[in-house]
Amino acid sequence: MMDAPVDYRRLNNMKLGDVLFSQRSVRRFRPDPISIDDIHVIMEAAVRAPNGGNDQPARFLVITDRALLDRMSQLYREAWWAKRHDAGYTWTSIEDIPPEEKNYRAAARLAENMAGVPAMILAFGRSSEDGSSVIPAVQNLMLAARGLGIGSLPTRLHPVVMQRVNELLGIPDSVHLHLLIPLGYPATEKAFGVSRRKPTSETVYLNHWDQAVPWS
Amino acid sequence: MMDAPVDYRRLNNMKLGDVLFSQRSVRRFRPDPISIDDIHVIMEAAVRAPNGGNDQPARFLVITDRALLDRMSQLYREAWWAKRHDAGYTWTSIEDIPPEEKNYRAAARLAENMAGVPAMILAFGRSSEDGSSVIPAVQNLMLAARGLGIGSLPTRLHPVVMQRVNELLGIPDSVHLHLLIPLGYPATEKAFGVSRRKPTSETVYLNHWDQAVPWS
Repeated sequence: MMDAPVDYRRLNNMKLGDVLFSQRSVRRFRPDPISIDDIHVIMEAAVRAPNGGNDQPARFLVITDRALLDRMSQLYREAWWAKRHDAGYTWTSIEDIPPEEKNYRAAARLAENMAGVPAMILAFGRSSEDGSSVIPAVQNLMLAARGLGIGSLPTRLHPVVMQRVNELLGIPDSVHLHLLIPLGYPATEKAFGVSRRKPTSETVYLNHWDQAVPWS
Repeated sequence: MMDAPVDYRRLNNMKLGDVLFSQRSVRRFRPDPISIDDIHVIMEAAVRAPNGGNDQPARFLVITDRALLDRMSQLYREAWWAKRHDAGYTWTSIEDIPPEEKNYRAAARLAENMAGVPAMILAFGRSSEDGSSVIPAVQNLMLAARGLGIGSLPTRLHPVVMQRVNELLGIPDSVHLHLLIPLGYPATEKAFGVSRRKPTSETVYLNHWDQAVPWS
């Protein structure tokens, strides 16, 4: 193995399987800061992911400044409710969301509590078509974070706030925001664990569409 | 940690940091088959990745059938050259590609040698906009493969072959192919290692676009 540009051995405190099978989306964070050394190793892990033709179009903006985090959390909340409005929902607060809509209620709580996160990472490409050169890095980033006990999840903003986000952070028009990832130590125990998914026998086929895999 | 639906402990033979910092794109494969148990654990790792609202739109088609792999490799080669044609290149064979275009020559060699791969995985979403619900799973898939010593890289097809691909594999028009991932044991030693990347001090900013990170 070639030398890496950062000492990544702290990530070796966890094993690959334990990380892949316990990286669950974390939506409630402690305010404790993330050290810049941790952010460094997380970002080095991010950029190791594959990208098309090694053009490396991905750019990342790490936010740790308290005033910027506060403003971004306001814009995130506005964006979250704008997306619900676009989707035809008339809810205007968490109380309006029916209890059975658990995913929406959890996401709304995050939108209300984003102000508490100690760090955000914004992941950009050249355009919306660059996903396969940006999103693998975001997944590496979140796995590396989980390896350090730091929770995260991928979120999106909404066009209604983008001009203000770009002005706030000096983001040029020539780039496209793919994902915004809040980072923080989980506020609850058991925040990490195996994510709930449909059985792979329903989502994975062998040799022909809809043909069962042998483990089904 | 909750019970996982597969025994993923084989993935614990490698540590997180060693995997994140050695998953390099592999383009030359041995023909040795990948066991279905390995494919199973790889796909279980894939679906654990985050996806938007837990809608789980991703679908995967694993190809291990020799005749299908042969036909897909022909279509992959045709697609690869069609992309070069779209990009304005007049090359029609590897010999036409200048030696300094190392990335293109390596990719062209893969296009010529894809027939040798023992497995391919096709990753689908509902549309091209589903990338953030499909591509994280593809990255998990490739990391899990690397954890088992199996090489891979993300590739794309081209519209000119899609109708034939869909007919060959029974793929419905209602889904969108994001990536095609060949899987195989590397043909060369030292296939894995730290990928070459720009310094993160050039691609990661702190609190404002173009503002240096402290490790730069």
